[in-house]
Amino acid sequence: MVKKIILDCDPGHDDAIAMLLAHGNPNIELLAVTTVVGNQTLEKVTRNALAVARIANITGVPFAAGSARPLIRQIEIAPDIHGDSGLDGPVLPEPAFDVDSRHAVDLIIETIMSHPPKTVTIVPTAGLTNIALAARLEPRIVERVKEVVLMGGGYHVGNWSAVAEFNIKIDPEAAHIVFNEKWPLTMVGLDLTHQALATPEVVEKIKAVGTNPAKFVLELLEFFGTMYKSAQGFDYPPVHDPCAVAYVIDPSVMTTQKVPIDIELTGTLTLGMTVADFRSPPPADCHTQVAVKLDHQRFWDLIVDALERIGEVKV
Amino acid sequence: MVKKIILDCDPGHDDAIAMLLAHGNPNIELLAVTTVVGNQTLEKVTRNALAVARIANITGVPFAAGSARPLIRQIEIAPDIHGDSGLDGPVLPEPAFDVDSRHAVDLIIETIMSHPPKTVTIVPTAGLTNIALAARLEPRIVERVKEVVLMGGGYHVGNWSAVAEFNIKIDPEAAHIVFNEKWPLTMVGLDLTHQALATPEVVEKIKAVGTNPAKFVLELLEFFGTMYKSAQGFDYPPVHDPCAVAYVIDPSVMTTQKVPIDIELTGTLTLGMTVADFRSPPPADCHTQVAVKLDHQRFWDLIVDALERIGEVKV
Amino acid sequence: MVKKIILDCDPGHDDAIAMLLAHGNPNIELLAVTTVVGNQTLEKVTRNALAVARIANITGVPFAAGSARPLIRQIEIAPDIHGDSGLDGPVLPEPAFDVDSRHAVDLIIETIMSHPPKTVTIVPTAGLTNIALAARLEPRIVERVKEVVLMGGGYHVGNWSAVAEFNIKIDPEAAHIVFNEKWPLTMVGLDLTHQALATPEVVEKIKAVGTNPAKFVLELLEFFGTMYKSAQGFDYPPVHDPCAVAYVIDPSVMTTQKVPIDIELTGTLTLGMTVADFRSPPPADCHTQVAVKLDHQRFWDLIVDALERIGEVKV
Amino acid sequence: MVKKIILDCDPGHDDAIAMLLAHGNPNIELLAVTTVVGNQTLEKVTRNALAVARIANITGVPFAAGSARPLIRQIEIAPDIHGDSGLDGPVLPEPAFDVDSRHAVDLIIETIMSHPPKTVTIVPTAGLTNIALAARLEPRIVERVKEVVLMGGGYHVGNWSAVAEFNIKIDPEAAHIVFNEKWPLTMVGLDLTHQALATPEVVEKIKAVGTNPAKFVLELLEFFGTMYKSAQGFDYPPVHDPCAVAYVIDPSVMTTQKVPIDIELTGTLTLGMTVADFRSPPPADCHTQVAVKLDHQRFWDLIVDALERIGEVKV
Repeated sequence: MVKKIILDCDPGHDDAIAMLLAHGNPNIELLAVTTVVGNQTLEKVTRNALAVARIANITGVPFAAGSARPLIRQIEIAPDIHGDSGLDGPVLPEPAFDVDSRHAVDLIIETIMSHPPKTVTIVPTAGLTNIALAARLEPRIVERVKEVVLMGGGYHVGNWSAVAEFNIKIDPEAAHIVFNEKWPLTMVGLDLTHQALATPEVVEKIKAVGTNPAKFVLELLEFFGTMYKSAQGFDYPPVHDPCAVAYVIDPSVMTTQKVPIDIELTGTLTLGMTVADFRSPPPADCHTQVAVKLDHQRFWDLIVDALERIGEVKV
Repeated sequence: MVKKIILDCDPGHDDAIAMLLAHGNPNIELLAVTTVVGNQTLEKVTRNALAVARIANITGVPFAAGSARPLIRQIEIAPDIHGDSGLDGPVLPEPAFDVDSRHAVDLIIETIMSHPPKTVTIVPTAGLTNIALAARLEPRIVERVKEVVLMGGGYHVGNWSAVAEFNIKIDPEAAHIVFNEKWPLTMVGLDLTHQALATPEVVEKIKAVGTNPAKFVLELLEFFGTMYKSAQGFDYPPVHDPCAVAYVIDPSVMTTQKVPIDIELTGTLTLGMTVADFRSPPPADCHTQVAVKLDHQRFWDLIVDALERIGEVKV
Repeated sequence: MVKKIILDCDPGHDDAIAMLLAHGNPNIELLAVTTVVGNQTLEKVTRNALAVARIANITGVPFAAGSARPLIRQIEIAPDIHGDSGLDGPVLPEPAFDVDSRHAVDLIIETIMSHPPKTVTIVPTAGLTNIALAARLEPRIVERVKEVVLMGGGYHVGNWSAVAEFNIKIDPEAAHIVFNEKWPLTMVGLDLTHQALATPEVVEKIKAVGTNPAKFVLELLEFFGTMYKSAQGFDYPPVHDPCAVAYVIDPSVMTTQKVPIDIELTGTLTLGMTVADFRSPPPADCHTQVAVKLDHQRFWDLIVDALERIGEVKV
Repeated sequence: MVKKIILDCDPGHDDAIAMLLAHGNPNIELLAVTTVVGNQTLEKVTRNALAVARIANITGVPFAAGSARPLIRQIEIAPDIHGDSGLDGPVLPEPAFDVDSRHAVDLIIETIMSHPPKTVTIVPTAGLTNIALAARLEPRIVERVKEVVLMGGGYHVGNWSAVAEFNIKIDPEAAHIVFNEKWPLTMVGLDLTHQALATPEVVEKIKAVGTNPAKFVLELLEFFGTMYKSAQGFDYPPVHDPCAVAYVIDPSVMTTQKVPIDIELTGTLTLGMTVADFRSPPPADCHTQVAVKLDHQRFWDLIVDALERIGEVKV
């Protein structure tokens, strides 16, 4: 069955690959792409999203810009990972179309409310500012969506502090809102995505696709790999965001575990930690789960398959 | 010069009087009335606002319901002060018209953006959830409004904790957003409003007006006085919210002092405190000020005058 | 009746004057002088205390050094007020005797436990590290002391942040311990001590005493005044610490008010605030009070009188 | 080489076994046993410690009582795990000797300062109040001890909250002091001790020893196992405290990893968490390490061996 998703992102190298996966996989119907400040400023990530759309020939899908800043905190961006443009490495084409006139939050709300209940999945791969605002502006979306599958957090791993992950820590209050609403929520966190490494074998397979979009992915991975090596000591870069899309396509590509999760808002060392309580079996009404173990082979097969389906695109 | 205002409120006995003052005073043009959870649930305060509109014959002004809950925290209401209905005391009529179909946040944004720059004043007399969401959804309103004049906080007085006031403490994150945006902001806090006591002399003057709206105010003050006596030991009730409207009408009805203010978000004893820094002269770009001393006589004269101008209203 | 006191201090210009007042006043018996890091390092304030002893000919009283750092936080000192030595301005003599071999905390405990119950008053005019440690090491001192009269805090005034005072903020956890133990505690805070200004009239009176110790006080006030002018904009310096000693000598030199007080430990803007709850009459078991209004004339008369009684001292 | 240790504990079932291991193992010289509020009140855990001394015939070692409460927080005890006495299960004998007249903190300081540098290891298996106070009262012990090997915390496991362990959470400020002093510190936390399960095979081996002390251990394990089953769902009880002693006896009984650790003091969900930062190789001056993997067989062999060496004891 085709899954309808709204992709809320901040491209971002791995966001771009997530877009390609969502676009190329036949089980995903992309209803909207929304952007939010994160890896870079709102202006940059929005332009990047439009550039990726042109590279992959994504058409007929509204792209809308959202929040230019977190709810409460000062803006934090990640040029040490994504470069000055937010998508350094490849040469980016001029966008082929313009953003939707609506605010991302309005587009999210309208998209969800105009589709039948339990048919739309929100897939945030960035800070959760837009999603939190949407839930506060139109609380009925919480009951109406199918689920939220997000890349962010980590129950035992951090990257933006000892125990907090970037997407959550840059807007912890937004994350608190999103994790505490009662929609089904799957956290695809660093525990999982640090298994999604773009190894040399993976790179070879993508190289074999031979199209412009595949070449674009290779350029992303090359830059991303260099940055992850220097900033965090990784041998091969972890490609976070497509993992969330992969879970929507086929949940069996990873194992998950139900566990209550909440967001730390006042910790000095732990601000933005996704605190998962593994002490007991989860309560009956537990609406959150975490991704635990990735099937590396099947995950990358999904990526390669999507690239093959996208085929050649002339820019 | 007539001042155009948006009144964002949670009636609430003193909110109701603030509405009457704004409606009856010739120097105020009421552009919109928006409601937010606070003294009671959103449903109750919205119904109360509509009932007050009928009592005072307020017509041609859109009333819109806004946020049913704070940004992050659990809902706190104040039945110990405002009763089960949020406006206990008088018998309330059925509303004469219905709320606007727009969300309060959208109405606030549209009202501000459709008027010329620096012509609209926001007057919040409740928790700041709606205003904070408006500032995040449409950041351009911050430059476009004339000013924000709010009832809330207290630099040396608290009522919902030792050092925090109700309107701020029930949504401190929203207050943090509103106080940190760079619009001119006047905090009419408890330091000021505890001077706005409805003394017996005041009650006599209102009694002398002799109309139904005046009778309504008397019933409000009677209930409010009883509750303030039992809950907080006041001899006469402090009538907070009209003070903010009075400042818009005539800033000389109170003295003010420029001082930087910020909102405490992590304090165990001080959560939601409006922390004002009086240690030095305010910096040149200080955009916040606090109300210090009320001209009690002139304040209540404004109320009585507004009631006289409203005149008799048959419900 | 003579009051027996332990003076726990960090001289410090106003601490030095507090020592002179305690030594010169016939109603005070100085049992011990203990030192703690604060205005300067432990080493410096201890040497300063011994120098003051020589200047005022204080003999037969044990002086002991205590804590060189706060319980939890990093060391903060105040050279902007007290200079590099902690007692800049006068030329300091070499000490005439050495510190006691005991740790200040042990001396405090032994002094209290070796005197009859309810006969010893602790007078801290510095951070509360020593007193907190003593209360934890020998909890019986809490019941055994007569009272604690401390200089520190402020219910409406701060100097080390918008709402926190230096002595409390440099070791808020220690203050939390001291304020929460059930001994009678009088907080002589900035609200009071900012009334104890060394005006030109005061300076003239001290000048008239004409002794070396008086000249020493004048040199202290001159330096202290210059620093308070440049650092905090005061016309005349507030002489904090002797106020606490003055209260012990004669409580009627100031008015006080019973009010519950607690220390904020987690606030971002309010860390170390002495949170006083004035909302209701104090509970029957309220063990804390704050100093409110100083009799400026009588306070300074006490200082001058002490200097006259100390008389001339050759160093 | 024989290791000289001070055991600071709150018996407590696993503390009792730690005492037996320290007493029975020939590589340990027990210099002092000190007690602190934790599993039960100070009075109860001190009496329990003396009872264990009689059961195992520990003589010639000073036992001293220490802190009856944490530094800042209210007392929390664990009757759900250790019963009303703190050592429920066995019938406890009357103590054969009395506690030392010194406070535990003084005994710790005197013991360390009277031994040559780098010869004494502190082994805390309880809240860290005593150790923190000793470090503050006599800072020179930090350089003088050999190391601190403590049972407490957990880098990925909590038991007193989702992410905090009992010994740390009951006095997080004390833990903050102890973890931030620069002595070599090994944290034997729940990550390790949850591997030290008293399986049926273990119970059989202890049963085979056949002495009164072994019978006492069996009774402890039986009660402890029942409580851990009902309170936390464990099939076999994790025997935490002897793990720290076992590490002192033979570090190769477990693997360890150097990693910076700090204690969260302000988190709402994470108070008392031992935050370990695994993101990078540890800095050169990293003075903390965590225990990772236990050799279950060798650990329990140490316990059984100690019981055999203690031999029969008539009470």
